[in-house]
Amino acid sequence: MAKVAIIMGSGSDRPVMEKAATMLDRFGVDSDVRVISAHKSVEETLAFGRGAQSNGFDVIIAGAGKAAALPGMLAALTLVPVIGVPISATLDGMDALLSIVQMPTGIPVATVAIDAANNAALLAVQMIAMTDEGLRGKLADYREELRKSTLAG
Amino acid sequence: MAKVAIIMGSGSDRPVMEKAATMLDRFGVDSDVRVISAHKSVEETLAFGRGAQSNGFDVIIAGAGKAAALPGMLAALTLVPVIGVPISATLDGMDALLSIVQMPTGIPVATVAIDAANNAALLAVQMIAMTDEGLRGKLADYREELRKSTLAG
Amino acid sequence: MAKVAIIMGSGSDRPVMEKAATMLDRFGVDSDVRVISAHKSVEETLAFGRGAQSNGFDVIIAGAGKAAALPGMLAALTLVPVIGVPISATLDGMDALLSIVQMPTGIPVATVAIDAANNAALLAVQMIAMTDEGLRGKLADYREELRKSTLAG
Amino acid sequence: MAKVAIIMGSGSDRPVMEKAATMLDRFGVDSDVRVISAHKSVEETLAFGRGAQSNGFDVIIAGAGKAAALPGMLAALTLVPVIGVPISATLDGMDALLSIVQMPTGIPVATVAIDAANNAALLAVQMIAMTDEGLRGKLADYREELRKSTLAG
Amino acid sequence: MAKVAIIMGSGSDRPVMEKAATMLDRFGVDSDVRVISAHKSVEETLAFGRGAQSNGFDVIIAGAGKAAALPGMLAALTLVPVIGVPISATLDGMDALLSIVQMPTGIPVATVAIDAANNAALLAVQMIAMTDEGLRGKLADYREELRKSTLAG
Amino acid sequence: MAKVAIIMGSGSDRPVMEKAATMLDRFGVDSDVRVISAHKSVEETLAFGRGAQSNGFDVIIAGAGKAAALPGMLAALTLVPVIGVPISATLDGMDALLSIVQMPTGIPVATVAIDAANNAALLAVQMIAMTDEGLRGKLADYREELRKSTLAG
Amino acid sequence: MAKVAIIMGSGSDRPVMEKAATMLDRFGVDSDVRVISAHKSVEETLAFGRGAQSNGFDVIIAGAGKAAALPGMLAALTLVPVIGVPISATLDGMDALLSIVQMPTGIPVATVAIDAANNAALLAVQMIAMTDEGLRGKLADYREELRKSTLAG
Amino acid sequence: MAKVAIIMGSGSDRPVMEKAATMLDRFGVDSDVRVISAHKSVEETLAFGRGAQSNGFDVIIAGAGKAAALPGMLAALTLVPVIGVPISATLDGMDALLSIVQMPTGIPVATVAIDAANNAALLAVQMIAMTDEGLRGKLADYREELRKSTLAG
Repeated sequence: MAKVAIIMGSGSDRPVMEKAATMLDRFGVDSDVRVISAHKSVEETLAFGRGAQSNGFDVIIAGAGKAAALPGMLAALTLVPVIGVPISATLDGMDALLSIVQMPTGIPVATVAIDAANNAALLAVQMIAMTDEGLRGKLADYREELRKSTLAG
Repeated sequence: MAKVAIIMGSGSDRPVMEKAATMLDRFGVDSDVRVISAHKSVEETLAFGRGAQSNGFDVIIAGAGKAAALPGMLAALTLVPVIGVPISATLDGMDALLSIVQMPTGIPVATVAIDAANNAALLAVQMIAMTDEGLRGKLADYREELRKSTLAG
Repeated sequence: MAKVAIIMGSGSDRPVMEKAATMLDRFGVDSDVRVISAHKSVEETLAFGRGAQSNGFDVIIAGAGKAAALPGMLAALTLVPVIGVPISATLDGMDALLSIVQMPTGIPVATVAIDAANNAALLAVQMIAMTDEGLRGKLADYREELRKSTLAG
Repeated sequence: MAKVAIIMGSGSDRPVMEKAATMLDRFGVDSDVRVISAHKSVEETLAFGRGAQSNGFDVIIAGAGKAAALPGMLAALTLVPVIGVPISATLDGMDALLSIVQMPTGIPVATVAIDAANNAALLAVQMIAMTDEGLRGKLADYREELRKSTLAG
Repeated sequence: MAKVAIIMGSGSDRPVMEKAATMLDRFGVDSDVRVISAHKSVEETLAFGRGAQSNGFDVIIAGAGKAAALPGMLAALTLVPVIGVPISATLDGMDALLSIVQMPTGIPVATVAIDAANNAALLAVQMIAMTDEGLRGKLADYREELRKSTLAG
Repeated sequence: MAKVAIIMGSGSDRPVMEKAATMLDRFGVDSDVRVISAHKSVEETLAFGRGAQSNGFDVIIAGAGKAAALPGMLAALTLVPVIGVPISATLDGMDALLSIVQMPTGIPVATVAIDAANNAALLAVQMIAMTDEGLRGKLADYREELRKSTLAG
Repeated sequence: MAKVAIIMGSGSDRPVMEKAATMLDRFGVDSDVRVISAHKSVEETLAFGRGAQSNGFDVIIAGAGKAAALPGMLAALTLVPVIGVPISATLDGMDALLSIVQMPTGIPVATVAIDAANNAALLAVQMIAMTDEGLRGKLADYREELRKSTLAG
Repeated sequence: MAKVAIIMGSGSDRPVMEKAATMLDRFGVDSDVRVISAHKSVEETLAFGRGAQSNGFDVIIAGAGKAAALPGMLAALTLVPVIGVPISATLDGMDALLSIVQMPTGIPVATVAIDAANNAALLAVQMIAMTDEGLRGKLADYREELRKSTLAG
């Protein structure tokens, strides 16, 4: 059974990041939401990152604002794919976007749009669906609903 | 056997994008490199996107510069995860970065750093390695070499 | 009789884009307003773009925010001139502006100011007026009113 | 017989702007290339703008760098559609792009990508082709060649 | 008797630009406030610019937002010094700042901070005070008050 | 006899700033060129600023790069108008532009384009010409030459 | 007994800068809060900077917005370390950030995040704690509380 | 005896970062130069950060480019002050600047100008000189030389 970690650097990121949990729910994918800061709680960041795979997480979604080091540090600590969500706490999120996406050679973070935690969840589902035909079916259904609600806009 | 598509919007993107093929080679992951432009060859973009899954691609890496629509259009055409590589053809790549990463709700693109085709390949390998322990071992080896070469810098 | 299509990528763009319809009305130019997303409803985008000319549209006005692919994709699908309106949904519209204006060689989009749907309409009228003297007269009248209301400001 | 004016604000813009003339040539559209600065030769700008229509110009392509006022001033002086080309003389062309695209309500400039004089020409051709089926055919041929050369890239 | 023109591109700039008139009042410098748009009322712009000197204006303060062509066009039409005020109508005023400050060789505009019409007035007073000792005295008094109110902050 | 000070923050600014001296020469306006840094030689900055008026300077042109404090500090030390030239030492000059133009209420700096020392000189000449008809005549001649050389471009 | 100066360029910076005093209080470090503008009260800036060391200040925290010259000028006037706080008065604080951080060789300013006066205080405490073991202990306690409150977020 | 660590995220940062060692040498301050990447060699980053104080380092200078996490991670691991040097590897260093300076509440990094490793060294010397009168004397001498060489520029 697939499981996704939703990690954020601050409690103030909850309103954005909980959209990821809601979206995963919709696909029947389990998620675990935690606040762990790369800068303010280093040991917990290390523990989480190092244990992510053995604790059964298939994908990690990490959101952070400003000098958003969390996604990159988690990516450095595990081989599990990390999806980064830049949070628009300051500078409309441009600082967080650049801090997350501009990773050095060797340690990528799969970055989505500013504040786009729901898209992070969809990307996680797509990764899991690479080997789960049932989930692909649900994704196809989601896309069809998206199409309809867009056209009805 | 895993297979990754490496698509770019222009022949001038080759020097950047071929780094993805080289990196995938290193992990024994097959890749297929093609130039297909979302704007200049729409029909080929549609055909490729629609057929990506049935043609056996597990992940798509798409690089483009300027108003880089290719990664997003491919993401809209398939459920296979799409990794976007912003190419620094103009404006230091900021136009391509924003055109690729700022996708609307529903259709994510996993964006990596500007010109970072090698990281796109590593992210693809990480996605495939979610269900391939052998590949995870190779990733661990890569990380160890990366660590050593960095420290020797 | 001239006809202009007003297409937008999301229902949330309506308040901005309906200013185009109002402006076209003033010039007695017919318009047709639809929500079609390049990413969320690809097939409708293709159908609309491919059929634009045969369906009698002289000009297409397309507005979109964020990774605004809609104007460029429509431009790729038709020879009818496409006017792009960047919508300020995020980053003050800079992401949409760059995604729309920075088109590759071969497929131009006539881009207007951020959120300037009324100017898109005027540009469409100017294009139609290239071969319609009556419309040129109405444009001259509009300019005269604009001049007066500005000086009265 | 259609005729397009290619105006630039400085002799140093020639290498960029002459690409517009070359492209128009290809479509058999006449063009007239002149250097006229909105700031350095105001009277010539006024004379050109006011007389553009009566002198038989169907479209004006205007390129300028820095505080690029030329396209907007010409647009204010005529009802003929004006296509603006931001030139990357400074700040990678961001100053010129904003100076050209951010026009006030009432006076649009159809802006293309930074340094994209060839796209300005194509846009002019598309405008003329609105009522010229032969030209539409040539545009279709151009697109087909573009598609082939892109795929061969 | 010194006289300063305060020109703005739109009636919506009044709340910002009237601060210039208030500041000039304080120094006993006459001012004349008008709305004249470089794009929307070209003829009035020309008439004002060409006649500025003979109509007794010593300095022109011109404020505009977006593709703010007004200060530069006035500077091109007269030898009277022109002070430009970028108005933050869009993009926090960055578009107006670049459109005003990045003038080509030969035609400078003395640009002040975004929305800083009061500083434009002070700069005008400083220019007039170059040959008016009494005004220099008033400027010294203003500075002393500024110092006191700042330290009291 | 009018006299202009040309001050720069670093010897490396000479190639840009000497264009101001050359331009002033052309108008027969005396200038005095010095390197004085607001940060590296504070006392000389203070001495120069405080004595500028009594030493007979009518206008000060100050160029600096990066955190360009020199123009603003000189403006704070004298009532003589200060013209600021942002130097493109880093970040294409955007840091210097913002550091010079964004002055607080009370202490304006007349900012010209990035690296535009020649325009700073012309602005100084325009200020002096406010009460010098002969100089206005030379400015008119300069503009006429500028017009001709532009049209010949 | 350690003492820190908290200087700001305007009374409007108080809400941000008083967070520094509150934070220093918590560590039992004395502070002295004053409004002194580099541009509006130069003499007080000079007096404060020159006397900072002899008046017993170990560290200076200086906050300013816009063309934020205050931190750099104080740094030029003393050998006491200066910590700069960019205030987001305009342009989201990007102008202040660049004006503070981009100092020339020889005169550094220790810049913290936009509006981050509390972090400036912590950095000051860290500097004092270099030779004060008791203060290091308090910093360790603060970090532990920070960790706990973050994880509780 | 004071000791400063000079840490950089990649061997390619050496040309910039070695300027810090050269500057420290001049003040007779010992330094230790190492390449340790927060992303590519996490364990060494942790070991270095945790042991920095007990290993006798008074100040840490950390330089990194792109998503420059190194300075912030070291700051999170130690109470020793950390000075961050943004390296201009991409985007003119704006990505590195924002990634370093925009730290969250609780964990400051003392950020200097882009590529300004020499200023980082001077800031370190100023911190050490807080309790070392001899070093203050050397700093005063350095400033005097700086003043002279600047004025000679």
